[in-house]
Amino acid sequence: MRQDSHRFLVAYDIPDDRRRSHMAIALKRFGLRVQYSVFMVDCSPSHVLVLQRELEDIMDRDQDSVLVSDLGLSKTADARAMTWLGHSRYIVGDGTMIV
Amino acid sequence: MRQDSHRFLVAYDIPDDRRRSHMAIALKRFGLRVQYSVFMVDCSPSHVLVLQRELEDIMDRDQDSVLVSDLGLSKTADARAMTWLGHSRYIVGDGTMIV
Repeated sequence: MRQDSHRFLVAYDIPDDRRRSHMAIALKRFGLRVQYSVFMVDCSPSHVLVLQRELEDIMDRDQDSVLVSDLGLSKTADARAMTWLGHSRYIVGDGTMIV
Repeated sequence: MRQDSHRFLVAYDIPDDRRRSHMAIALKRFGLRVQYSVFMVDCSPSHVLVLQRELEDIMDRDQDSVLVSDLGLSKTADARAMTWLGHSRYIVGDGTMIV
C-alpha cells in the first residue's frame, strides 16, 4: 500500500439491477466489498478521480446516488475512522481477512 | 452544530426486515438518511458511543453488519471528505437541502 494511500468508502443506491451489478463489477477492480452496496477502496487521492469517472460512465445521474467518502490515510483508517458492529468481512491492516 | 461535532456515516446490511426498519427508525433520531441503508450523523465523538450502544441493542451481531465511519470535523466534511455522484439528498453546511 502506498504511503499516500487514502481509505475511501463508496456507497451506492442504484434502483436498476443491471447498472447496480455493473457498478459492483467495476468497484471490485478497485477495492473490497464490505457490505451489499458499500465498497472500501485504498488508493491515492488522484487515482480516486479515475474511479469516479468510471462510475459516472456507468450510472444514471438522475436515478442513481453514489457517495465517495474520504476517511483519510489508509494506514490509520482502521483504528481511527472505522468501527464495526456485528460482523464485518474485510482485510484489516495486517492482512487478516475478518469474515 | 457543536464545534467538536464529527461527521459520521452509518452504513448497515441487515437481512431481517423488522430489525432493518428498527435500525432506520433509531438512526432517524440521530441523523439524516442519505441512501437506503446509509445515514449521516453529526455529533460529538462521545455521543456516537451512545448511538452505537443503541444500535447494538437492535441488531443481531451474527447476522447484521453495521459500519460507523468517522469523516472528521463536520464543519469541513462536505468539502474535504464527501463527493456525490448523481443525486444526493441531504443538507449541506449552509442548511440547503439538495434533493
